Amino acid sequence: MFNNFVYQNPVKILFGKGQIAQLGKQIPNDAKILLTYGGGSIFKNGVYEQVKQALKDRNIIEFGGIEANPTYETLMQAVELGRRENIDYLLAVGGGSVLDGTKFIAAAIPYDGEDAWQLVTGKAKVKQAIPIGSVLTLPATGSEMNFFAVISRKETHEKKGMGHPLLYPAFSILDPETTYSLPQKQIANGIADAFTHVMEQYMTYPVNAEIQDRMAESVLQTLIAVAPKTLGNPTDYEARANFMWAATVALNGLISVGVPQDWATHEIGHELTAAHGIDHARTLAVVLPHLLKIKKEDKSGKLIQYAQRVWNLSGTNDELIEGAIQKTIDFYESLDIPTKANAYGIGQETVDKIVKRFEEGKVVLGERHDITPEVVGEILGMSIG
Amino acid sequence: MFNNFVYQNPVKILFGKGQIAQLGKQIPNDAKILLTYGGGSIFKNGVYEQVKQALKDRNIIEFGGIEANPTYETLMQAVELGRRENIDYLLAVGGGSVLDGTKFIAAAIPYDGEDAWQLVTGKAKVKQAIPIGSVLTLPATGSEMNFFAVISRKETHEKKGMGHPLLYPAFSILDPETTYSLPQKQIANGIADAFTHVMEQYMTYPVNAEIQDRMAESVLQTLIAVAPKTLGNPTDYEARANFMWAATVALNGLISVGVPQDWATHEIGHELTAAHGIDHARTLAVVLPHLLKIKKEDKSGKLIQYAQRVWNLSGTNDELIEGAIQKTIDFYESLDIPTKANAYGIGQETVDKIVKRFEEGKVVLGERHDITPEVVGEILGMSIG
Repeated sequence: MFNNFVYQNPVKILFGKGQIAQLGKQIPNDAKILLTYGGGSIFKNGVYEQVKQALKDRNIIEFGGIEANPTYETLMQAVELGRRENIDYLLAVGGGSVLDGTKFIAAAIPYDGEDAWQLVTGKAKVKQAIPIGSVLTLPATGSEMNFFAVISRKETHEKKGMGHPLLYPAFSILDPETTYSLPQKQIANGIADAFTHVMEQYMTYPVNAEIQDRMAESVLQTLIAVAPKTLGNPTDYEARANFMWAATVALNGLISVGVPQDWATHEIGHELTAAHGIDHARTLAVVLPHLLKIKKEDKSGKLIQYAQRVWNLSGTNDELIEGAIQKTIDFYESLDIPTKANAYGIGQETVDKIVKRFEEGKVVLGERHDITPEVVGEILGMSIG
Repeated sequence: MFNNFVYQNPVKILFGKGQIAQLGKQIPNDAKILLTYGGGSIFKNGVYEQVKQALKDRNIIEFGGIEANPTYETLMQAVELGRRENIDYLLAVGGGSVLDGTKFIAAAIPYDGEDAWQLVTGKAKVKQAIPIGSVLTLPATGSEMNFFAVISRKETHEKKGMGHPLLYPAFSILDPETTYSLPQKQIANGIADAFTHVMEQYMTYPVNAEIQDRMAESVLQTLIAVAPKTLGNPTDYEARANFMWAATVALNGLISVGVPQDWATHEIGHELTAAHGIDHARTLAVVLPHLLKIKKEDKSGKLIQYAQRVWNLSGTNDELIEGAIQKTIDFYESLDIPTKANAYGIGQETVDKIVKRFEEGKVVLGERHDITPEVVGEILGMSIG
């Protein structure tokens, strides 16, 4: 068994110090640009100035205030602005939320249906999109080199993923120095997010995909090695650069070709964010270790491989499996990210609500399609216990 | 230190059993296609039939006979045919030589200068190219997912590399089953070629590029693991698939971003092929081990890392370095590829000729630009000794 696959990723990456200066060459001269950003950190860390300098004399309008877990409600304001101003290029400057939100804007501006939310739910298809470029300032989501976006809706407390090849950024600029001023918590979250992205694509069952497995292990090993360095010294350029590139490769499609994927941790985590507003990465740390415990038999082949290759453990199969799960918990905790849901004030009430929601939606998760709402209840129950 | 880089690779890969059936969807319906191939193995292994079936009712003309180490002289016949017939799509069906040759054809057809060889030497720039698709039948060169080509010229006994982003294939189809009927020698050569490609990009000096290093090690480890399996059982689909994907990733640009590169082994090897007609991969096995011995101090950092991570060796630094070089020799020899030049009848006369040629061309090679013609003489001298 070696599964067929199709792989194509056309995103141009400009990586390193000073690369924002290359921005002008990436965007057509006559483009009317809508620059999108988040809470305004780009004004404090010098990124806004660099972007304006690289695009001086260009036709730019701006839309700020895209929040973490970007909402349909906010983004529709940008869509209206973009339509009104006839913009023809989007430049996302910020982290994964700004990028994800901008992908939605790119698809929604030319959408002629009545309800653009249907682009998120999949009821309407993306048929056109405004081209997107990005300047990434927070390594975490991998959004800079893929075509996925996660969008929330306040009104209905929903958080959903969408994706389409038309939503690949044309280019993404990654300058590790732009991340120096980020709060430690955001760096820790970014590391946990990237780590979990790899686990979703790797921690399933073996299908003899040697290159994909070893590349996934490469990203995990890099994140593990780099985490204490980059948290310990935010201006260690090499550590920050390795983290930034690792986070991109974690979700640019390369490690997932032809292998089963899980993503249950993300699906369950999204519910915790929607219900309690907990940081995305932290919800992953709350779910994954307990999911691994409950699914350890199904995942035994990969847990053993992960124990040996990523953590250099030895011992019996049972020891390897237990050791691998414990190392995973220890890793999240080393980032100051608790792995128990009760640390975030989540109780049985929330668990019941999420289980009910999955039951109503007939949601079944996991690489074997066997994580039923009942199993979700067990996972979360163990996490609050 | 972490070097800046730009990375973009738009090639679409369709990987796996039966993917040739997807050919029709990859090429515009109204395209006039020039199908290029080599010595005719595609008629014996069923690939030609599959291609014709997938493209029935399409407008196709054919050009066969592209040789290993494709020559300018042969390729110019295809260029004339393509111009005369006004073709607007090239479909390369074969191994790296057919692909490389087709890249030259793609650039030469629209070239309006007098001497298309200048596209190879770099005296003329590629400004336009006919789009290329490929069906790969021999994993080795990585040409299916990069924009490089190596072209030979009979008249002058030259062998030179060219490259341009316009020469990326639009798509490449990789079906491991198409390789089942290949002679063992070609598979062994392909493994050695892919292995050496990685070494050229990896075996230099450390620059703290964690992801790139670990991914390079991933490809090496995969090739080492897969070699005896795929040589021992040509129809082991998993082994062949892992080999095929490894050979592509070995030279698709991902492992080389931001790291120093050597390529001296290839440059010297090209001379051996030009002078003696030795298989490309075999020239690499003749050069690399001796180059490593002579440059072992400059390369010590990476040799130690390679010894530990790829070959799981332990010991003093000197032991690790010697062990790593010996393992490399053993690996080539395990493929039935001799690593001594005298095994191919190469003597001091050829060495002197190559050294003289490099002296005349003022060629200096290697990641530190210190492999002078004199050092080339030492390397080859050790190889014939």
